[in-house]
Amino acid sequence: MTIRGNTRLIAHIGYPTHTFKAPMVFNPYFEHAGIDAVVVPMGCQAAPYPAFLKAVFSLTNIVGALITMPHKVATVALLDDTSAAVKIAGSCNAVRRAADGRLQGDLFDGEGFVRGIRRKGFKVEGARALVVGTGGVGAAIAASLAHADVGSLTLFDVNAESATRLGERLHHHYPQLRVSTGSNDPAGHDLVVNATPLGMKDGDPLPVDVARLAPETFVGEVVMKDEMTAFLKQAAARGCRYQVGTDMLFEQIPAYLEFFGLPSTTPEELRALAKISY
Amino acid sequence: MTIRGNTRLIAHIGYPTHTFKAPMVFNPYFEHAGIDAVVVPMGCQAAPYPAFLKAVFSLTNIVGALITMPHKVATVALLDDTSAAVKIAGSCNAVRRAADGRLQGDLFDGEGFVRGIRRKGFKVEGARALVVGTGGVGAAIAASLAHADVGSLTLFDVNAESATRLGERLHHHYPQLRVSTGSNDPAGHDLVVNATPLGMKDGDPLPVDVARLAPETFVGEVVMKDEMTAFLKQAAARGCRYQVGTDMLFEQIPAYLEFFGLPSTTPEELRALAKISY
Repeated sequence: MTIRGNTRLIAHIGYPTHTFKAPMVFNPYFEHAGIDAVVVPMGCQAAPYPAFLKAVFSLTNIVGALITMPHKVATVALLDDTSAAVKIAGSCNAVRRAADGRLQGDLFDGEGFVRGIRRKGFKVEGARALVVGTGGVGAAIAASLAHADVGSLTLFDVNAESATRLGERLHHHYPQLRVSTGSNDPAGHDLVVNATPLGMKDGDPLPVDVARLAPETFVGEVVMKDEMTAFLKQAAARGCRYQVGTDMLFEQIPAYLEFFGLPSTTPEELRALAKISY
Repeated sequence: MTIRGNTRLIAHIGYPTHTFKAPMVFNPYFEHAGIDAVVVPMGCQAAPYPAFLKAVFSLTNIVGALITMPHKVATVALLDDTSAAVKIAGSCNAVRRAADGRLQGDLFDGEGFVRGIRRKGFKVEGARALVVGTGGVGAAIAASLAHADVGSLTLFDVNAESATRLGERLHHHYPQLRVSTGSNDPAGHDLVVNATPLGMKDGDPLPVDVARLAPETFVGEVVMKDEMTAFLKQAAARGCRYQVGTDMLFEQIPAYLEFFGLPSTTPEELRALAKISY
């Protein structure tokens, strides 16, 4: 990769930066595809972030920004336009500047999840979905499922109020959607998503009672620590189709590329080119 | 070059960016030497520049900034500490953040010039020097010659007031230095520097009367359009030793590396690795 004067920038903003993976995913693709752009890690703490976000979008060669911890929530209030996914999840991980100078934000975790299960043959429209865990990533997945015309959503979180509030925000944006909260029973669902951190540590309990998972149920995972978490292994053993955590990651990259107006590609090519392994 | 989360940034700030060369000089060296840092072009216009400079130095992985047109003069007023070269030339092309958070500025055009002629065997200490052209680069060279204990300085510019004012600033910082202005006669000088743009265009007049150049005089050039400008060709034909314009460029890179606290190298290695040719 040769960086030249006119190379366009995607600012990858967060702190700490040592866990950033986007540079090793986007940049090898840009080099391979001859796209004169580069993702640059910019370590920024909370206090200077509002001023930095504004300043970095004053650059003439900025394409957009990837926003990560701890700024995904704070970003929402700094933008001119936000997508429904941002409003529902209350967080934002992608920012661009429109031609008129307005800062626009979107959130692609959930979009990546939905693209992935669709490409694996799961029909989202009308499906009965259970999302366990209504923190940032769970809310993003719920919002994207709603946007993709899921039939009903069951939301569960150990913090019951979190699930209730997410249900209210979903209802506000998608009044026709059936939303219920309070149970993590996977029975009767076409799609069951683990959006909790359970599976990050050895010995974690499972997010749902897998004995009540039907073999026809499609199972999705957000934990990326292992390709096959204990939850996925047990679901697969019951005959369930499934999606692993890193699929959500690679499926969302094309959505970012489209958002930034850059030539896009497949998750498979991105994964093959990436200078990281999972 | 693989950019990772902890890769350190050198912001190359100016506008327009298409003429930027530093990324193609620094980055191949960083890759070759295994230094996890990258020079990133950041196109910034005058109005947002003060806020952007402050904001970019709030980043946790910033090493420093290379400042170019149109910000080299405006930068001076934005810093906490400036070198004598910055104060004399009234411009700044390198900024770093000290451990206590203070922004420090320096100017390395003149330093590069002086390092180059020294490495070619020219003894600066006590020498009688003529600098023709007292704009930004001429002032920088004059300041660095003064810092390097040149014996006397003759300054000439078609704008006589510019030469006079530079002489006053030099006298303020180096009261022992003999400074005179008003003549571009090269006779009687050990060092003659063209710091004007003459030589950029075919048919430009020569900056001095080469018929009055002694063969013992060392001649320096800042114009980079051709390796051997008409001025250098005629001086060489008279037997003068000389330094070409791009030598000043590559000689100053080690000074930047030292300023930023990065491992340094020789101008020869930098030139061999650079992804640009002159």
